[in-house]
Amino acid sequence: MTTSTKSNSTTPNTSWRGDSAAIACLTFAVDAETPVLAAGRRYSSNAMAMSHQSYDMRRGLPRLLGILDEFSIRSTFFVPGFVAEMHPDAVSSIAEKGHEIAHHSYSHRPSTGLTPSQEREEFERGMEALSALDIHPVGYRAPMWAATWDTAELATEFGLKYDTSLMDDDRPYVISTGNGPLVELPPHWSLDDWEQYAYLPEPHLGNVIEPPEKALSVWTAELDGMREWGGLFQLTAHSFLSGRPGRAQNLRKLIETVLDRGDVEFRTGEELCAAALRDHSLDWRKQEPLEVSASAYPIW
Amino acid sequence: MTTSTKSNSTTPNTSWRGDSAAIACLTFAVDAETPVLAAGRRYSSNAMAMSHQSYDMRRGLPRLLGILDEFSIRSTFFVPGFVAEMHPDAVSSIAEKGHEIAHHSYSHRPSTGLTPSQEREEFERGMEALSALDIHPVGYRAPMWAATWDTAELATEFGLKYDTSLMDDDRPYVISTGNGPLVELPPHWSLDDWEQYAYLPEPHLGNVIEPPEKALSVWTAELDGMREWGGLFQLTAHSFLSGRPGRAQNLRKLIETVLDRGDVEFRTGEELCAAALRDHSLDWRKQEPLEVSASAYPIW
Amino acid sequence: MTTSTKSNSTTPNTSWRGDSAAIACLTFAVDAETPVLAAGRRYSSNAMAMSHQSYDMRRGLPRLLGILDEFSIRSTFFVPGFVAEMHPDAVSSIAEKGHEIAHHSYSHRPSTGLTPSQEREEFERGMEALSALDIHPVGYRAPMWAATWDTAELATEFGLKYDTSLMDDDRPYVISTGNGPLVELPPHWSLDDWEQYAYLPEPHLGNVIEPPEKALSVWTAELDGMREWGGLFQLTAHSFLSGRPGRAQNLRKLIETVLDRGDVEFRTGEELCAAALRDHSLDWRKQEPLEVSASAYPIW
Amino acid sequence: MTTSTKSNSTTPNTSWRGDSAAIACLTFAVDAETPVLAAGRRYSSNAMAMSHQSYDMRRGLPRLLGILDEFSIRSTFFVPGFVAEMHPDAVSSIAEKGHEIAHHSYSHRPSTGLTPSQEREEFERGMEALSALDIHPVGYRAPMWAATWDTAELATEFGLKYDTSLMDDDRPYVISTGNGPLVELPPHWSLDDWEQYAYLPEPHLGNVIEPPEKALSVWTAELDGMREWGGLFQLTAHSFLSGRPGRAQNLRKLIETVLDRGDVEFRTGEELCAAALRDHSLDWRKQEPLEVSASAYPIW
Repeated sequence: MTTSTKSNSTTPNTSWRGDSAAIACLTFAVDAETPVLAAGRRYSSNAMAMSHQSYDMRRGLPRLLGILDEFSIRSTFFVPGFVAEMHPDAVSSIAEKGHEIAHHSYSHRPSTGLTPSQEREEFERGMEALSALDIHPVGYRAPMWAATWDTAELATEFGLKYDTSLMDDDRPYVISTGNGPLVELPPHWSLDDWEQYAYLPEPHLGNVIEPPEKALSVWTAELDGMREWGGLFQLTAHSFLSGRPGRAQNLRKLIETVLDRGDVEFRTGEELCAAALRDHSLDWRKQEPLEVSASAYPIW
Repeated sequence: MTTSTKSNSTTPNTSWRGDSAAIACLTFAVDAETPVLAAGRRYSSNAMAMSHQSYDMRRGLPRLLGILDEFSIRSTFFVPGFVAEMHPDAVSSIAEKGHEIAHHSYSHRPSTGLTPSQEREEFERGMEALSALDIHPVGYRAPMWAATWDTAELATEFGLKYDTSLMDDDRPYVISTGNGPLVELPPHWSLDDWEQYAYLPEPHLGNVIEPPEKALSVWTAELDGMREWGGLFQLTAHSFLSGRPGRAQNLRKLIETVLDRGDVEFRTGEELCAAALRDHSLDWRKQEPLEVSASAYPIW
Repeated sequence: MTTSTKSNSTTPNTSWRGDSAAIACLTFAVDAETPVLAAGRRYSSNAMAMSHQSYDMRRGLPRLLGILDEFSIRSTFFVPGFVAEMHPDAVSSIAEKGHEIAHHSYSHRPSTGLTPSQEREEFERGMEALSALDIHPVGYRAPMWAATWDTAELATEFGLKYDTSLMDDDRPYVISTGNGPLVELPPHWSLDDWEQYAYLPEPHLGNVIEPPEKALSVWTAELDGMREWGGLFQLTAHSFLSGRPGRAQNLRKLIETVLDRGDVEFRTGEELCAAALRDHSLDWRKQEPLEVSASAYPIW
Repeated sequence: MTTSTKSNSTTPNTSWRGDSAAIACLTFAVDAETPVLAAGRRYSSNAMAMSHQSYDMRRGLPRLLGILDEFSIRSTFFVPGFVAEMHPDAVSSIAEKGHEIAHHSYSHRPSTGLTPSQEREEFERGMEALSALDIHPVGYRAPMWAATWDTAELATEFGLKYDTSLMDDDRPYVISTGNGPLVELPPHWSLDDWEQYAYLPEPHLGNVIEPPEKALSVWTAELDGMREWGGLFQLTAHSFLSGRPGRAQNLRKLIETVLDRGDVEFRTGEELCAAALRDHSLDWRKQEPLEVSASAYPIW
């Protein structure tokens, strides 16, 4: 990527994080049945695996919405189109509570395993499914964060304003695309609940059951690091995982920890996107994939 | 699933959990040699692997029965038919101590890998093996919780009243089957000892040896979550795993933790089944597997 | 196995553990290069993997011998024949310090992957290699504990008096073989350092690097359980793993913990073997492998 | 290896660690995109995986350089040639701050998977790439520490003075090669951040996200062990991993822990190399790969 900062803007410059030491953005992936089906349609016949995912809508999502209500925190929910079609009432209820809903593909199959036309179709069907619920997302997250080099162009082509899939920073930056700017809100595996909680042997979604207190230790360490360096603490929680009772209480503890720090504000993806565009000190970058020769890396 | 609550009952309504904040149900899988043999009959020639499982009957099961005796807690033991045939005295001794014995298939092979007629045969042979010991189960748990969409119908066809294999809730609910209601008592991977303790390289049964205190942390977090939201804390322990000395002491600590909370009662699966049928506020659901099109998920 | 206790002995009965609450037996596998070579002879060309194992003789083994010296604890060292041939001086030095050296196969390839004649050859070559150093073992441990149903007969045929490979108990018992009794001193994965410390990607020997304090937590929990139920706390440490500086200090902490308990004595395998034969209350068992029909487990 | 100590030197003998109980050597692998590309050139099309590695240059490396500045600690940075070519300014900035830059192959493909001529080419191209930045390394580390038996000869042939890939010791020693002595500074998996922090599913770089406090526990245990036995505490951190905010703070805690001990000095690889050559009590060894017969290990 080439990098520049956009200094010729006519609007007054304001920091994307205001006066806060860091910004906390709680995001939720409402994946429901999609991670199991993305492993193969045949798993729809596995009643247990499907029930493991159905927990999401029945208990996980409502419980986490309740926790956010306690603190009056607006958050961002990433919803695959398939989930919007299967569970329209539950998805609408998220929006009705005032949260942001963002685009998370249609089927939750990783883009890196799809053809370009399949990736485009996933954008299209995902938009249509949300649109049918009168939801008009401005943000996008690739399933499994598996963005391709086409993803940013596709996102802006579909009118989206920000993405949260790339891990090359720990604060917002702007990607210049052929269709205008796309704010990037970088996530990271260490700020995800999947690596701490996901366990399902078939299809294999994960093989760890860590104590909530361990997850809290990982996240709090990163929170305090972000406070030192002025970063974006963007947590990714999955409602079928973090919606379990003990883990939901742990999310509450995380929120309390953030509040106790006293120098961190909560923002949604949408709010961060707008704030990033007002901050002229942030990097504007062009995506320029690394050229790799067969001489350096002979194995394709 | 479609969901309703059964409001036209003529019996007075009583909460499935009475006045308790949550209910604790300690369940034990007495799998003995079956998990090794389910990986392949050839493993019967692996003396070490077989001895690893024989620990169950010789030390694990008696030790755990002793711990339960200390606290006068009645529990529920899931016994594969093969185990009942191989170890009739040990299995009978569980019943003689007043515990409930429930159906856990015949061979402990996951149903999701069997044909419908094989799954039926597993129900049949499992029932016969327990029946030969004059044990008449009312509950069922699929091996590895790997229930199919046929499992609920099969369970009621064989006269069983409850199942504990599906993970789409954290409190009891009722499945309406063609043969009458089946109470579901939802389990979860996080309330299992396998993910914390199972280690056997060949056949591969697991690759973790966590400290008992870590398992206790996972379970206690979930217990306290269940107390907040009125849930079912159903622990699944395996007597060949949790029957080891240090882990048995850890189970005792868990029981003491439950008792110390002061607002949690212990119940068996059978008792919970009856209580769930008396609670008209619980969901009654029909199993309606999700229709998944090849257009959404092309890979079978 | 059929079980009996040998009550017709003419010697006075004495408990195998005397007046102690439990017995601690520290055993060391001096595997050196063998686990890497057992994965394939080609790995001898991997200088890093070989050097990872050579640490054993250069630093690990001498350091652990020093720790044992500090406490004047006699221990049992399991040495593959190949190691005795390659490192005769180091192996002799173990014996010179008064420790017991026991048989650990020739090449450290798991018996369960060998033909019966190969398993016999492993016994033979292992005996010869120790014998060449004037070491005459009385105990045997199968590599990876992977004993077959032939192992006990082979052990007694080669004049060995005890084995420590089978996991169906947590105190000594006696196996009646065609060549006389074989005392079994049961090990367990949870009392091993491999599951906590082994990391080598190629050949894959393990993928965990746990803190020494975590290993100590696992072991101490089991120690205290053994004290409650009168068991055998038999630790298996590998000198190429536990011989690292921080882990060696952790072994010292474990020894101090055992000593602090005040009711646990240290014994070698050889001493335990003799004590077990003097205790007429211990089980005498015949090995009777489970008959498993193809009807119960159709998959070979 | 045969071992001797070089006692006939004419320079006065001084201990490689001076008066310190142990020496701490903080080393950093600046791998950037190379571990992903080493898994296959096709992964250059995976924008997320590539962005995960680009974090290195953008944030990880500068942050860690800042931490070292705080304590005025000179360290050693291992840089693959490909990284020097792609990111010349960032690499030069390391040298400008006074740190040592060492050779870390060209492409970060493990030598054990290459032909001898490929390994040679990796040395050559790596030297050229550094040389183009006017960097003239004296040390070498094999990617993944995967040294072959040719590596030491190649290193001295290319004029390098020390290597840090072999794990058969925990203090420096000297390898006698056909081109003169090569000091070996032994690393170990337990003193690496990869095993604690690396998580990337595709290409698979690792699957753990441990809390920084757990990594600190592993490293501190080894540090204290090294202090007891006079060893070399050589940490290997990866700037794309330990450069994350919470982990960078953890590195600061480690440095503070080292300083608090009061008896440990920091040294670079280059300084250690010189000190090792002045210490005549250190081992001088010839590399003599173990001869392994097909009779002992029939499987190639």
